[in-house]
Amino acid sequence: MNYLERVGRTRQRMETLGVDVLLATCGPDLTYLTGYEAIPLERLTALVLGRGDDPVLVVPRLEEARVEQRPDVFTVETWNEDEDPVERVAARMRSAQVVAVADHAPARLLLALQGALPRARFIPASLVTSPLRATKDEAEVSLLQAAATAVDVIAEGLRARRLAGRTEREIQRLLVELMLDAGHDRANFAIVATGPNSASPHHESSDRRVNTGDVVLCDFGGTMHSYCSDITRMFVVDAVKPEVQDAYDALSLAQETAFSSATVGTPCQEVDATARDVLARSDVADRFIHRIGHGIGLEAHEDPYLVVGNETRLAPGHSFSIEPGVYFPGRFGLRIEDIVVADVTGPQRLNSAPRDLAVVE
Amino acid sequence: MNYLERVGRTRQRMETLGVDVLLATCGPDLTYLTGYEAIPLERLTALVLGRGDDPVLVVPRLEEARVEQRPDVFTVETWNEDEDPVERVAARMRSAQVVAVADHAPARLLLALQGALPRARFIPASLVTSPLRATKDEAEVSLLQAAATAVDVIAEGLRARRLAGRTEREIQRLLVELMLDAGHDRANFAIVATGPNSASPHHESSDRRVNTGDVVLCDFGGTMHSYCSDITRMFVVDAVKPEVQDAYDALSLAQETAFSSATVGTPCQEVDATARDVLARSDVADRFIHRIGHGIGLEAHEDPYLVVGNETRLAPGHSFSIEPGVYFPGRFGLRIEDIVVADVTGPQRLNSAPRDLAVVE
Repeated sequence: MNYLERVGRTRQRMETLGVDVLLATCGPDLTYLTGYEAIPLERLTALVLGRGDDPVLVVPRLEEARVEQRPDVFTVETWNEDEDPVERVAARMRSAQVVAVADHAPARLLLALQGALPRARFIPASLVTSPLRATKDEAEVSLLQAAATAVDVIAEGLRARRLAGRTEREIQRLLVELMLDAGHDRANFAIVATGPNSASPHHESSDRRVNTGDVVLCDFGGTMHSYCSDITRMFVVDAVKPEVQDAYDALSLAQETAFSSATVGTPCQEVDATARDVLARSDVADRFIHRIGHGIGLEAHEDPYLVVGNETRLAPGHSFSIEPGVYFPGRFGLRIEDIVVADVTGPQRLNSAPRDLAVVE
Repeated sequence: MNYLERVGRTRQRMETLGVDVLLATCGPDLTYLTGYEAIPLERLTALVLGRGDDPVLVVPRLEEARVEQRPDVFTVETWNEDEDPVERVAARMRSAQVVAVADHAPARLLLALQGALPRARFIPASLVTSPLRATKDEAEVSLLQAAATAVDVIAEGLRARRLAGRTEREIQRLLVELMLDAGHDRANFAIVATGPNSASPHHESSDRRVNTGDVVLCDFGGTMHSYCSDITRMFVVDAVKPEVQDAYDALSLAQETAFSSATVGTPCQEVDATARDVLARSDVADRFIHRIGHGIGLEAHEDPYLVVGNETRLAPGHSFSIEPGVYFPGRFGLRIEDIVVADVTGPQRLNSAPRDLAVVE
């Protein structure tokens, strides 16, 4: 990745928006600008990016050896355990009037900075970085593709596995291991929801065992070379009940139609509305109780969100999930999810695992 | 856990401190007060705890089914994807003059709340909750003990495994799997640092293979029934070099002496100083480049921190790590870590895996 170029583009936006300093703490903005993934604990790591000065990466002394030095992009400054890192960072921003602070920075840090810099105005760093991060370049799309392909293989492989008799937790654990085996640095989540549990979109895996006739919803993803994967596929044990197949057919058409609608220039909320329109024809639009998708990149969920109210138009390089779902409390739930990239030639699906309702043992 | 009692004690402290509302977003304060572990993503989940009104847990509609209802402690209010949850939460705090917001709440949320409630003063929620959470009751100590015992078994089992020829990443993966096998809900981290890499306290596992004569530092922990484990043990392949054994002996004495000093009433910083004094006798105090320990409970790192400058006196139920380390860049590093609970009868070690430098194949 060309971090120097990213820093340059970020500074241009800072100038346009009148932002004097951007503070990227442990999290995706920091990774975007420097490649460094800090440990998400309480010790402060932060890139202080002014409009003029050379960027400085402030890190705890005991983590200095973790940082891959990039002297063209930033210099490293360490703090010791007996020092207050907030004072140190604040000292570098004394003259700043507008400070953009990473969206994920802890509230406690922001309160301390506001106390130390009472005249500064703070804004979320995403106002600066989000449009830059949302537009993936070729190298980023390749990394998203690699992560998508890794989970595709897992999703396809599940079709040949016996699920009956296993618990949700066992299948969840299996998915986590398969993601690590497939080259992911970490598994971010694995939702395994069986039978009536699948009616809860973010069901927490339980000790429930898969029975004959159950649907099994598997929604899983992780991080590989800093970029995220996320896929949902549906399985059913032995035989499909007609009402499940009917709902699945409607959902499948909604997902396909929404995918086709995700062309460059389309407002994000329209992709969501397209799926709802299709589901309405089968009278199940009211069962689709969440947005159709979220952006994906360094974060599992990031801009652009494909949700009612978001009028942002899709641009080349926008990457996002398309994942309509229908949920029937007490009975079953269904969801189909792919990662898609907007492109001038039309929407590109990164996931290619079979999308039909797989009948398994 | 008696959540009602916790809420009551929290309200008492809010009254003492003049806090009108406490806002516990996804994170340890929320788990402490309600038992609920929300998904750490961008959709807002928050407990709004006023001094008078009944507590309200605001959750995304699609996650409502995850919440175990506790009508005696809180009522649930859901928000839909087309609503702004910040407005909804702010509406419940209109008359608040002082709002305590969870330390880990994202800066972006705090900025939005400050915009919506311009007259309110915001403070970190830890001012309210930290003294309560730092003092573990019997049930919490039991959970910490169970998590500690689980990783003890893993640490002891490593002594019988062949490490030579394996990469750091392979051993890290093994530790993650063993933690899950041992009943942990998640593995939070597993530092595996071999040979000269062990001189970096928070080394990131690489593809380096373990060689004869290498030291192998394993520092790992996870979460089991909401409470955390954390242990560090040292191994050496085939034979111990005299300089390693000398440094280890000094470190071992420092850890033991610091442990014995962690009595009720002792200032946190004194435990740290005690270890430094012992290391100074062997002229390696300057190699101990981090604090001696951190509190542990619902969080892997929390109050009280055993660090220079912290004059807080240890109280019965305080739980924390004691983990001195010495680091020789380019050569090797060593660390020994146990979780300890302060008690009127003296410091209680929760970890009991052998603490000597284990010679392995």
